[in-house]
Order: sequence, then structure tokens, then C-alpha cells
Amino acid sequence: MTKEQEFLAYLKEIALISESVGLLEWDSQTGMPAKGNEHRAEVSSYLSGKAFEMMTGQKMTDFMTYFTENPSELSEFGAAVFAETKEGYDLNKNIPAERYQAFSKVQSMAHSAWVAAREAKDFSLFEKSLGELIEFTKEFIPLWQKDEKTPYDVLLNQYEPGMTVEIIDEVFSQVRDGIMALRAEIAEKGTEPQTDFLNRFVSKEQQREFVTQVVTELGYDFSRGRLDDTVHPFMLNLNRNDARITTRWAENDFAMATFGVIHEAGHGMYEQNVDAKFDYTPLAGGVSMGIHESQSLFNEIIVGSSKSFWQKQYGTLQKITGETFADVDFETFYKGLKQTKASLVRIEADSLTYPLHIIIRYEIEKMIFNGEAKLADLPAIWNAKYEEYLGVRPENDLEGILQDVHWSGASFGYFPSYALGYMYAAQLHHAMAKDLDVEEILGSEDYSKIREWSTEHIHQYGSSRKPNRLIMDATGENLNPQYLLDYMKKIYFEAYNIN
Amino acid sequence: MTKEQEFLAYLKEIALISESVGLLEWDSQTGMPAKGNEHRAEVSSYLSGKAFEMMTGQKMTDFMTYFTENPSELSEFGAAVFAETKEGYDLNKNIPAERYQAFSKVQSMAHSAWVAAREAKDFSLFEKSLGELIEFTKEFIPLWQKDEKTPYDVLLNQYEPGMTVEIIDEVFSQVRDGIMALRAEIAEKGTEPQTDFLNRFVSKEQQREFVTQVVTELGYDFSRGRLDDTVHPFMLNLNRNDARITTRWAENDFAMATFGVIHEAGHGMYEQNVDAKFDYTPLAGGVSMGIHESQSLFNEIIVGSSKSFWQKQYGTLQKITGETFADVDFETFYKGLKQTKASLVRIEADSLTYPLHIIIRYEIEKMIFNGEAKLADLPAIWNAKYEEYLGVRPENDLEGILQDVHWSGASFGYFPSYALGYMYAAQLHHAMAKDLDVEEILGSEDYSKIREWSTEHIHQYGSSRKPNRLIMDATGENLNPQYLLDYMKKIYFEAYNIN
Repeated sequence: MTKEQEFLAYLKEIALISESVGLLEWDSQTGMPAKGNEHRAEVSSYLSGKAFEMMTGQKMTDFMTYFTENPSELSEFGAAVFAETKEGYDLNKNIPAERYQAFSKVQSMAHSAWVAAREAKDFSLFEKSLGELIEFTKEFIPLWQKDEKTPYDVLLNQYEPGMTVEIIDEVFSQVRDGIMALRAEIAEKGTEPQTDFLNRFVSKEQQREFVTQVVTELGYDFSRGRLDDTVHPFMLNLNRNDARITTRWAENDFAMATFGVIHEAGHGMYEQNVDAKFDYTPLAGGVSMGIHESQSLFNEIIVGSSKSFWQKQYGTLQKITGETFADVDFETFYKGLKQTKASLVRIEADSLTYPLHIIIRYEIEKMIFNGEAKLADLPAIWNAKYEEYLGVRPENDLEGILQDVHWSGASFGYFPSYALGYMYAAQLHHAMAKDLDVEEILGSEDYSKIREWSTEHIHQYGSSRKPNRLIMDATGENLNPQYLLDYMKKIYFEAYNIN
Repeated sequence: MTKEQEFLAYLKEIALISESVGLLEWDSQTGMPAKGNEHRAEVSSYLSGKAFEMMTGQKMTDFMTYFTENPSELSEFGAAVFAETKEGYDLNKNIPAERYQAFSKVQSMAHSAWVAAREAKDFSLFEKSLGELIEFTKEFIPLWQKDEKTPYDVLLNQYEPGMTVEIIDEVFSQVRDGIMALRAEIAEKGTEPQTDFLNRFVSKEQQREFVTQVVTELGYDFSRGRLDDTVHPFMLNLNRNDARITTRWAENDFAMATFGVIHEAGHGMYEQNVDAKFDYTPLAGGVSMGIHESQSLFNEIIVGSSKSFWQKQYGTLQKITGETFADVDFETFYKGLKQTKASLVRIEADSLTYPLHIIIRYEIEKMIFNGEAKLADLPAIWNAKYEEYLGVRPENDLEGILQDVHWSGASFGYFPSYALGYMYAAQLHHAMAKDLDVEEILGSEDYSKIREWSTEHIHQYGSSRKPNRLIMDATGENLNPQYLLDYMKKIYFEAYNIN
């Protein structure tokens, strides 16, 4: 066995353990008996501990040292795997074990504090824990830092490699101003679409039948995936041949699960189409949160906003639901789907207002890590920004700053990827439209060319190419938020009858 | 940390890995996407290999040596755990690793050969593989042997500790003769019950609703278990708080899943009620195949044959199925459930004829390991025994000797446990009836006293007491097959109107 083969075999062991941790997690969130909780926590933490130990322990250190000193012993493939592995390794090698342990402890207490604060709708109950998490993060930032310019850049980089405050400041301000302008125009000139039919009863079985058919047509492969019920929908890939999606259903709001499943299927299709050669290495699996969202959002907001797509699919929905929508003509149906309305809660937002929710979080996170805000003032800052950008004001902290779980897990720098996904999706669509007649395909019986384009330009590479490289190669330019604004204008102006 | 604590911590690691292997297995058999197969095999074999290595490797050897030399360092609990661990350890310590590997290889090829032979309905295609498995087993028997008298005793002992050919020869001949006599009397004097209604359509949803309610009442705890669909039904316990059952459904044969789920729930109830103190040790979990079957069969054939039980449950079934059985009175329904009819296939057998299927396999296995039969003659021997004991003769090997998977996995000595389970169940019922009015309880709204009796006498002990001790303590005597014969006579004579 060469040293490279030894290294790959070791990474495979880690991948196999991680896959079993993945299944334990999927099971916990889909169907584990309620009282299995405590035993499950023991198994999961033991195995993820094992994997972590293998990723950071002596044996890994030896591999890192060896190949740093003997890079010529690596094949091209091995070098790519090594580089990705080393990035992950370097990220945590400077964090003292006992500090990381202390941090984990605070993290788990912070989650309980967040839950309690939500119940009381009172941010002050979460404030202390949040403060501790921020302090730990500030302590770790210099240890994580490579060549990032600001502390917050270090955090961004963990979720979206290569992304910087400088870039995001620019694109987010463009997106924010653009969306606010669109919203103003819609409010002034638009005709509100009819939406009451969206709350008609569609049984879970009917919804499942419909959306299963839709995502199968889009290219989600059920022989390499499955759809389960859960409370907080997610996609989880055990491997490229087992990328599972989940949803929750509301029988008086079929659009929720419909768009939810279409979204998760986009994540699943990404994973299902990564090149097999990356199996059992850190290059298997999507490269970043932002690129992953670009694929789920391509499904949800590009395909899911397409008129010709719905022209065909509305027929299917009608067939499955009998007389439910018999009195709703297609134009009415389609426009109803694209209603836009400011909401207080991010996960209930429509696709036009969604990026504003993200931008608010981004601006607050930057304030936190630049030391520009006192913790106690955050709820007021939050509420003021919602008023300013969206014209709505939370009545309490549950509707406001306590709504997201992310900060209770110290996932600072994570939110921006959601908005990046929107922009990437629109930019990719624009590039795709140079090669394919996307609307015509979405009106046809066979969508495969669309999935194939995405596989060719994005999916297949797994984590072997960084986000900026992928976007540049696929679209011929760097991140450009104008495509998102253009697409939204087209879609929403049509829905609101603005010429 | 004391040496005992170290030892228990090590066993806990093994238990945690095994639990994750259990979930991987459950998932493979219930819902894993078809094409996830190959990746799954990698994960499962890696983790079970890890567990096996930990159970047999140097560290375990050191513990075994240490506590053999220093038994006084073990607490009473530790000593019990040590004894059970050592038993498992000793079983395989003498098998040379490369012979075990060669055996595993033959095993997996034998499975394919068995599948091919089934397709061709031709035993000769399986003969060579079976021969190799037998040779390996014969080679291993002396290495496994402790104080067992004959080679086949060694095999028996692996599935039912303490069981011997001497005992089984005696009880099986009593059971065989007894059942054949009952069958003769039924054939001569009985009135065949009406059974056509058993094939009426009952939807999967109706069946699920009914049987879920039934097993909940029997004491299967769905907050610590769940019911899924599968091809080959089984119970799998990840731990006592997560003991899952599975079934398959036939909408024109509701009795199949009904009794199937009642059976698996018996296995699940056993696991759910093992004392928590055995968690993460080899003493957690049922002690043997035979005792496990005693619990599932107690549910299936004791409870499931009880007239007062069905008096109440038939009402529930009727409520759930609307008009389906409106014209079938209770007597007719109850008697129809207890029809007996010789079948060629073990898993389709009724509870009266089932033990004969087992006895045939037992007799043939003994012939094999006593060198009393040539392989090529086995199909003829099989067919002759079916003719003699059951009065039916297979038309081909698929209906005959190729029907069971067990031999293709070299599980020789396994079959007798099924019949032992029948006898234990009846004997336990007889003992229970001294403490409780079982029929009255089964006619009431609250079955909990029955489950509690079983927990007190069987469940709670996990693997900390051997089968013979459990049976002796619970019933005051050794295995006695007369109770099974008495119970069958009572049940079947009533169903067939024999006074």
C-alpha cells in the first residue's frame, strides 16, 4: 500500500462512520420512538466523537505532516483530497481541546436557554448564553484565521469559502435596494392576486402523490432517495446513492409542502449527481451552503416560478385533486402562487422578500463582531430593521430575534449563504438560458436537459471546486445579483399585472 | 477508574457500535433506497468488523486474562457481565482468523447458490455449497466445544444455551406423536370450520389501525418502538427504549399481518422490559432464541388463540372494517382463525402443525452431523418425512428442502428453538394461570397483569439468567411439552367441535 492509499483508506473509515452518524440523525428526525432519545444521544455522540478524533488526532496529524513534506507522492486526485482534508484539519488544529469542550457545553446550554426564552418571548433570557457563544467565537476567530481581512470574514469563509464582507456588502446593498424598489412599485401599481384557493383542503396523500411526481420529473431519483415526514424539513445525504429528503405537510396549505419538497429535491439532486470518483473522500458532497442553496432554490424559485412549468403541472394537480380547483383557471392559480407579502418570520417569507430577512441578520451579525452593538440592544435593532426594510414590526421577541435556531448553535456567518443561493440560482439560470430554451423545456414532458446542465456545471464536481470557480466557469462572471433582481421583476410584475 | 469500570466502558463502546449496525440493518430492510445497497454494505461491514475486532482482539483478550486471574476485583454485577462476555469470547477464540474468513466467503457464495437453486427448483445446484458449509461447521465444532456430548449438541448450545440432543429427542418425539394423534382425531371426528371470510378485503390502513390497537393493549409500547413494512418480518431492538417491529400486509389475508404483528410485538415487549441496569452490556437483550420465541409465541398462540381475547377484539375489528364481517358471527369467526391444515411451507403453517416442520428439520440436521445421510439424498429424506408426518409431499425442491434461508447461512442448530418457543410458551401459560385468571383478563379492558407477569418472570432478566433457570424459576419444573399438547387439544378440539 502506498502512503496515498493508506491515507485514502483512513479517510474512507471516517466517511463510513460519518455515514452511520448521518443515518442516526435522519432516523432521530423522522421516526425514532420518542423515548429512544437518551440512548440515541449516546450512540451519536460516541460515533461523531470517534470521527472527530480521527479527523484531528495523531494519525491525521502524521498524514498532514507527511504530505506537506512529500507532496510529490500524491497523485493529482490525492493532492485534491489532501488539500480539502487539510483545510478542515487546519481549521480546528489550533483550538485547545479543553476550550472546545467548554464551548460545546455552553452551546448545549444555549440551546435550552433559547427554547426557554422563546417560551417566555423574552430575549433577555437568552442574552447571557448568546453573549458567551459570541465570546467563544471571538476567541476562536484568530485561531481559525488564515488570510481573511476581518473577523467576520473568517466566519463567512467557513460556510462559503472565498466569500468576503467586501463582496457581500456590495451585493447585499444592491439586492436590498433593488427589492425595496420592486416592492414599492408593486405596492403602487400592482393588482393583488387572488389567493383564497391556496387554503383549500388537499389531503396529505394527494399532495404526496403530486409532489412525488413533480420532483421525479425534475430529476430527483427515488431509487437513490426517499421522502419522509419531519418537523423541520431537510435533505440528508448518506452517500450519492442515498440522498434523503423530508417535508412537513399542511392540508390547508398545499403550497408549503409542494415548494418545500421541490426545494429539498434540489439539494438531493445535487448530491445524487456528484461524480462517483469522490466517494468516501471529503470531496464527495456539495461544496458549500451557498452552492447547495443555489440548487435547491433553482428548483424552488426558478423552476417553481416558471409559468410554462406550472401550465403543465397544474393539470397534474387538478387530476389528482378532483374538483378541488375546478373553478380556478390557470392564470389565477399561477398568479396566486406568486403573491408577495411582508412577513415577520423568515421561513414563511415569499421569494421576493426572503433576501431582506437574510440581509437584516447579516447586518446584525457584522455589528456584533465589529463590536458595534450591545447585546441588550439587539431586539430593538432587529425590530427597527424589520420596520425599515419590510414595513412590519415584531410584537415580541419570538416573532423577532428569537425566531431562528442558528445563533443558539453559534452558527454565525451562516445566514448569508441563503441569500447567496438566491443570487447564484438566478445567475445560473441566466447562463443556462444561453444554452437551453429553459421555458420551452419546462413546458415539455422531459426536463432532463435542465438537470443535465446543472450536473455538468455544478453537481459533478462535489467539493472539488470552490464556489467562486464554479460560478465563474458556469456563468462566465463573478457573483452578480442583477440576475436575481431581473428575474424577480419579471415574475412578480407579471403576477401583479404590471407592464 | 477501576479495572471493572474500564471493562464496562469498553463493552459500552461495543454496544454503541452494535446499535448503529442495528439501525443500518433495520433501515436496509424497511426503507433504504434500492440503489443505496452497495454503499450500505460498506458501512455495515466496516462497523460490524470493528465491533467483532473489539470483541475478539488484544484488548478484550487482556480483560479476559486479567479477570480470570483476578476474579475478586469484580463486583457481583461485573462478574455476571464478565461471565457472559467470556462465553462469547471463548466461542470464537480458537477459530483461526483465516479459516473464519474462508468460511465467510463460502457463506456468501452459498447464499447466491441457494437463490439460484430456488429459481431452478433444483437442490443439486445448492448441494456443493451446503456441503462446504457443513464441512466448515464440522471443522469448527471441536474448536467451539466445551462439555457438550455430541457434535450437534455444540450447535444447539449456540442458540439455546443448556439445551441437549438428549432432552430434545425426548420432547420432540412426545410432541410429534402427540400432534400426529391430535391430527388423526381431528381428521376423524372434527367439523371443518368455515374460513372463506378470512380472504375478504381488509385494507392495509384498517389492518394497521386494528393491530396497532391490539398490540398496544397487549403492552407493546409505541413510544419505545414502531411498526414498519418489510418483506421478511422481524423485531430489531436497538435498545430497550427502541425495539422496532415490522410486518408485511396482504389485503386479502388480514390474519397474516394480524398474527404477525402480535408475534413480533411479543419479541418487542421482551426487549422493552429488560432491566435498565443491563444497558450497554451483553446482558441487555433476550437470553436465547427459544426464550425469545416463547414470548412472541405466547402472544401469537396463547393470547391469539384465546376465545375471550377474540370476543372483545372481534368487536374492535368489526368497528374498524365497517360491514366487511357483518354477516360473520363470533363463533364462526373464532373457529375460522383456528383452522388447521397441513402445508408444505413452514412459514405458512398453522400453530398445530408448525412444530412438525421443525422436527423434520431437526431430524435431518442430526443425520447430517452424525454422518447418517448423504447430501444428495437429503431432498428424498425431506420429502419422505413430510409425507410421513404431515401427509403432504413437495412436488419440487423449492416447496421442499430449499424453502428456508437458514442452512445457506450455516445456521445449523437454529431451527429447534422455534419449537422450544412453542413449548415454553404453553408451559409459561400454565404457570401464569396459577397466579392469574388469564382468560378473564384477556376478556377485560386491561391486559397489564399478563405483561407484568411475563416481565417479572422472564423479561426483566435479559441475558442474566439461562433458559433452563428461567423456565424452572417461572414454572417450577423443567421443559415439559405436555402443556403444549394439552393447550392445542383444547383449542383445536373446540374449533373442530370435538367434545
